Amino acid sequence: MAQSSASQIKVGIVGGTGYTGVELLRLLSQHPNAKLQAITSRSEDGMPVAQMFPNLRGKVDLKFQTPEQAGLESCDVVFFATPHGVAMKQAQSLLDHNVRIIDLAADFRLQDTAAFEKWYKMPHSCPDILAESVYGLVELNRGRIADARVIGNPGCYPTTVLLGLAPLLEGGKPLVDESRIIADSKSGVSGAGRKAEVSTLFSEAGDNFKAYGVAGHRHHVEISEQLQKLASGRQVGLTFIPHLVPMIRGMFSTIYASILPEALDTDFQALFEKRYANETFVDVLPAGSQPETRSVRGSNALRIAVHRSGNGDQLVILVVQDNLVKGAAGQAVQNMNLMFGLPESAGLEHVALLP
Amino acid sequence: MAQSSASQIKVGIVGGTGYTGVELLRLLSQHPNAKLQAITSRSEDGMPVAQMFPNLRGKVDLKFQTPEQAGLESCDVVFFATPHGVAMKQAQSLLDHNVRIIDLAADFRLQDTAAFEKWYKMPHSCPDILAESVYGLVELNRGRIADARVIGNPGCYPTTVLLGLAPLLEGGKPLVDESRIIADSKSGVSGAGRKAEVSTLFSEAGDNFKAYGVAGHRHHVEISEQLQKLASGRQVGLTFIPHLVPMIRGMFSTIYASILPEALDTDFQALFEKRYANETFVDVLPAGSQPETRSVRGSNALRIAVHRSGNGDQLVILVVQDNLVKGAAGQAVQNMNLMFGLPESAGLEHVALLP
Amino acid sequence: MAQSSASQIKVGIVGGTGYTGVELLRLLSQHPNAKLQAITSRSEDGMPVAQMFPNLRGKVDLKFQTPEQAGLESCDVVFFATPHGVAMKQAQSLLDHNVRIIDLAADFRLQDTAAFEKWYKMPHSCPDILAESVYGLVELNRGRIADARVIGNPGCYPTTVLLGLAPLLEGGKPLVDESRIIADSKSGVSGAGRKAEVSTLFSEAGDNFKAYGVAGHRHHVEISEQLQKLASGRQVGLTFIPHLVPMIRGMFSTIYASILPEALDTDFQALFEKRYANETFVDVLPAGSQPETRSVRGSNALRIAVHRSGNGDQLVILVVQDNLVKGAAGQAVQNMNLMFGLPESAGLEHVALLP
Amino acid sequence: MAQSSASQIKVGIVGGTGYTGVELLRLLSQHPNAKLQAITSRSEDGMPVAQMFPNLRGKVDLKFQTPEQAGLESCDVVFFATPHGVAMKQAQSLLDHNVRIIDLAADFRLQDTAAFEKWYKMPHSCPDILAESVYGLVELNRGRIADARVIGNPGCYPTTVLLGLAPLLEGGKPLVDESRIIADSKSGVSGAGRKAEVSTLFSEAGDNFKAYGVAGHRHHVEISEQLQKLASGRQVGLTFIPHLVPMIRGMFSTIYASILPEALDTDFQALFEKRYANETFVDVLPAGSQPETRSVRGSNALRIAVHRSGNGDQLVILVVQDNLVKGAAGQAVQNMNLMFGLPESAGLEHVALLP
Repeated sequence: MAQSSASQIKVGIVGGTGYTGVELLRLLSQHPNAKLQAITSRSEDGMPVAQMFPNLRGKVDLKFQTPEQAGLESCDVVFFATPHGVAMKQAQSLLDHNVRIIDLAADFRLQDTAAFEKWYKMPHSCPDILAESVYGLVELNRGRIADARVIGNPGCYPTTVLLGLAPLLEGGKPLVDESRIIADSKSGVSGAGRKAEVSTLFSEAGDNFKAYGVAGHRHHVEISEQLQKLASGRQVGLTFIPHLVPMIRGMFSTIYASILPEALDTDFQALFEKRYANETFVDVLPAGSQPETRSVRGSNALRIAVHRSGNGDQLVILVVQDNLVKGAAGQAVQNMNLMFGLPESAGLEHVALLP
Repeated sequence: MAQSSASQIKVGIVGGTGYTGVELLRLLSQHPNAKLQAITSRSEDGMPVAQMFPNLRGKVDLKFQTPEQAGLESCDVVFFATPHGVAMKQAQSLLDHNVRIIDLAADFRLQDTAAFEKWYKMPHSCPDILAESVYGLVELNRGRIADARVIGNPGCYPTTVLLGLAPLLEGGKPLVDESRIIADSKSGVSGAGRKAEVSTLFSEAGDNFKAYGVAGHRHHVEISEQLQKLASGRQVGLTFIPHLVPMIRGMFSTIYASILPEALDTDFQALFEKRYANETFVDVLPAGSQPETRSVRGSNALRIAVHRSGNGDQLVILVVQDNLVKGAAGQAVQNMNLMFGLPESAGLEHVALLP
Repeated sequence: MAQSSASQIKVGIVGGTGYTGVELLRLLSQHPNAKLQAITSRSEDGMPVAQMFPNLRGKVDLKFQTPEQAGLESCDVVFFATPHGVAMKQAQSLLDHNVRIIDLAADFRLQDTAAFEKWYKMPHSCPDILAESVYGLVELNRGRIADARVIGNPGCYPTTVLLGLAPLLEGGKPLVDESRIIADSKSGVSGAGRKAEVSTLFSEAGDNFKAYGVAGHRHHVEISEQLQKLASGRQVGLTFIPHLVPMIRGMFSTIYASILPEALDTDFQALFEKRYANETFVDVLPAGSQPETRSVRGSNALRIAVHRSGNGDQLVILVVQDNLVKGAAGQAVQNMNLMFGLPESAGLEHVALLP
Repeated sequence: MAQSSASQIKVGIVGGTGYTGVELLRLLSQHPNAKLQAITSRSEDGMPVAQMFPNLRGKVDLKFQTPEQAGLESCDVVFFATPHGVAMKQAQSLLDHNVRIIDLAADFRLQDTAAFEKWYKMPHSCPDILAESVYGLVELNRGRIADARVIGNPGCYPTTVLLGLAPLLEGGKPLVDESRIIADSKSGVSGAGRKAEVSTLFSEAGDNFKAYGVAGHRHHVEISEQLQKLASGRQVGLTFIPHLVPMIRGMFSTIYASILPEALDTDFQALFEKRYANETFVDVLPAGSQPETRSVRGSNALRIAVHRSGNGDQLVILVVQDNLVKGAAGQAVQNMNLMFGLPESAGLEHVALLP
């Protein structure tokens, strides 16, 4: 576990002009054990962050700085809220200064460098650091995260699908047809980030519903790699279709798995409840529940409902989260808490905003 | 085929204070071969329809009337845009006056009266008329619709799922694992109707996504009954999960089916294109397409995209429609056109509204 | 100032099945100095509040109780999140038990009972309590609120218009044409409450903009009464037109006032900045700013921008707040803090949720 | 009036990759007297328009072409759905070929070239053509439009404000205080166009309300120029504040004017009804009405309600339109109809889409 010499963890953020950046700022500005020390953006050097993000007025006094000015090497931890490929270039230098790294992009998500290079279309510049990095899904990797120097913070879709399937795959013997699992996932538009693009304009994405990435999505390979680990190395066949919902925040995955004949007498509700009984942020709903994304808007909770459909041999797992919190910035803070020996829920106690 | 003594079909609407009602009025008020003659609502007797639905100002001069005043028996055709259970009570009387009936509720959708009574929680008052009625999905039942006296207009979800699966099931030999088909469907909020309910308030349904009816939905039984017909009586196992999308109009079904080993060399794209080559309102998109609900907003088109996922043995069929047009009022007008020997697209040529 | 015998203020809520209720629960469940003791609802007796409002799962364990069971008389303070007319009936009994009252409905907003009875169409049952009650707009009435036993929590629209005009009216001499002030106000749909009504359905209020209450709105009389007080008894002529915006939370008032010739050299920016310099929750933006409602979503902040239009003789004041926080539940908690000698911002430090 | 040698008007569109472009295509593809002949876009040369705008699949077969290929000089009329500054460069050449021009940008809106150059930050390249061009607000300039060779199609905001004020200003003697008129206008996001920009992303503009252009908006000068014409040259003082509404289509202007003492006995409802009695697309609502933007979604109608507020000396005029139809493409087609001697409503008979 990392040692922080002072009572407050000194935090730096690289990037921070996107939605994961502003969400990190919202969470960390109120964290009882963290002190925001620097935030970098070359393009916005000198601009107060509260000018770009007016919700931070009176709450965050930082200005964007260039990386050279920011003094990141004196931080205890640096979050990368950057495009893919940035963190891996700066990781060694920060590690040399004993700075922990939490990357919210994909540089340290895929252990398979060939897969990384195929899907992200760039070489991986530090495979050795990748090898020691830990996939930061706390509920699956708690022990290793506490001791990690570098965390690859999971993608938003993978968080829902992996936590929705873990109880089914972790046991020694298969419970469902692992060759044909389906994840029909739906995301709010903020998942596409704060980039100027026609396809996510209000007048394009509003009052509309569509699938995208049907031919292949980067999160598919990330999910598959982790599923295989969960299943003790067994191959898991996954069809994953993401969709875009005309809402700002929120993610919903509907997961379908066929129960194997020999597992038909399993009490899946109990299986899930037991698996997550001690997890602060994973909430297995009572049998028959139908979760809503708004129930977690702005909070780090992820809620799961377990259903058996048809004649009882089809599992339908419903999972909701806020894609920017448990699916991104909240999970990153949860990782930080764990790495620095803090209560896992420190700074993450928000009640969801409803309505 | 019905005979209309005049050049204009005389049309009556029972109900009409809901969304299928106003949509029928939009379509029929501009139909070149139809004349709106009467619209009934006991509760709104005397109110101009344009007062309730301000889009109709200057376009529809009718007032709501009581059924007694409306003279429906002198119409050529009467549409029921009513709650379930109304059409079956008035059907015999209208048939006695040689009036054709198109019911947009569920009274004539399920041929299995036991299933009807279970799911709609009321006895069926005219099983004999039900027996002669025809399920009004034109692309499947064109021949019988032309000669029908009573049409059960399909539910919105069934329209997408049935047209998305028909090419796979109609052939003599199975192409996909018919025991495990999944339809993950998503609907805009107008599908819930124009009833005062908390769950569909703007502040409840907005910026939110949820599943509903997971334990069982009335449209499931309707779909299953028709799927079995399509498959020449073979049982078809369907898991159907509907979801609510924060948009007004639009419906999207993502359908998953596992291709059988012996069917792996099928050209599914060609199969779908051929099946619907002569259909005006079913548009099979080019391979690789990803349809959007807004592409059919306000139009009677239904668009289908055919994908093979994973290692190629998983079919993913994407289907979009406007739930109020092809999923309700547009399909009803299409049925009327067919019953009265008109061109099927008469009055249904709208270009979708985008953005 | 009220005395709380324990370190935690014991809080009761009457009503609480609406949006101000759930917002009170969100704020109070995390308040460092308050303990939620009881919440009443006759119709929902026995239901856990977290079942009605899923955002509260794991955060609030209370169940709705009948008023008889709830033991409100042992609370330090009771919030009424009820329809108009409920608080005035229960006020005397609570006061007899030394319980402070904060009414989020209109029973104690209008000092003029005749106006109350005209606009709310019911007699006022306790004019004597009304006479001692205080209008709970902290920034205008701080001194009296601290000592009050009964608070009439302001309406949402009045909060924006009054704080937007106070600096102009409070001085001894008129600065603007007080006979012709215009407030063009816009509210998110949650302002209409959580009632089952057709007009606030998603499919009615979504993708739509309209004015309402043009012929007269209850908040008009409330604003006018307070404006006259602010202006030392001078009549203030106000045109107030509310509009409905297709968003869940948020309120925006655009206020127009003509600068008097003798006041043209006033530095209005400085006037506003000075007036609110010590106010935690009123944020006067830098000159030239254009506030957005989302900058205060979920927070108790109210932001004001001051513009001079045209040839400089027209003031345009832009005011934003979250209608459910500063416009309702947050302001109520701010009143409680003041009444019990707590820091005014206790439990109200949320950073707004953006995006 | 222009002469079209054939029964169908040959139409070309320059630009057409934005929202006014797709809306022109929607309207013209169904126009009984127009034939779409060419559409140009350098950047999208060769792309079928139905690929960019999927609502046009099966309805419009055109591909984008370069201007060189498009043969615009053989058209009867060319619409410019381009950025400002394009039409004026190509106007002379088209006029030389006897092609009528309707510009949906601002090149021919402002008669005052100095104002044009100040607000649009470019010199005007054809002031002589500007001098002969006509401001295409049909209800104000019907006679001149019929004979025009070049039309400057009005801005969306000006259309609402000018038609909302015309009856007040056109008479010989002033009825309202013309020095202090206020237009508080609200627009759907499609008014900002189909440009990739952060500020109109779904996650920025959704669930949000803001003012913009408070310090000055290009449409202000356009409105003022026309108001002065309406008022027979009298100066009209206008404060104009535009706001952005989280909806796709729709525009709402709330106009405030103080009635002069000598005009207090005017029947303004009758004044407006009489003024627009013969206008197909201007609908003066019954007294007391509160128009909604959705009542005109997709239609060319503009609706006006006239209210007297306060003690009766304050006029409040409410105006709604679809910003892309009457506020842009529909009005352009209306101009075309007039220029070619067609019925003014040809191709513009759509019933608004509700819900």
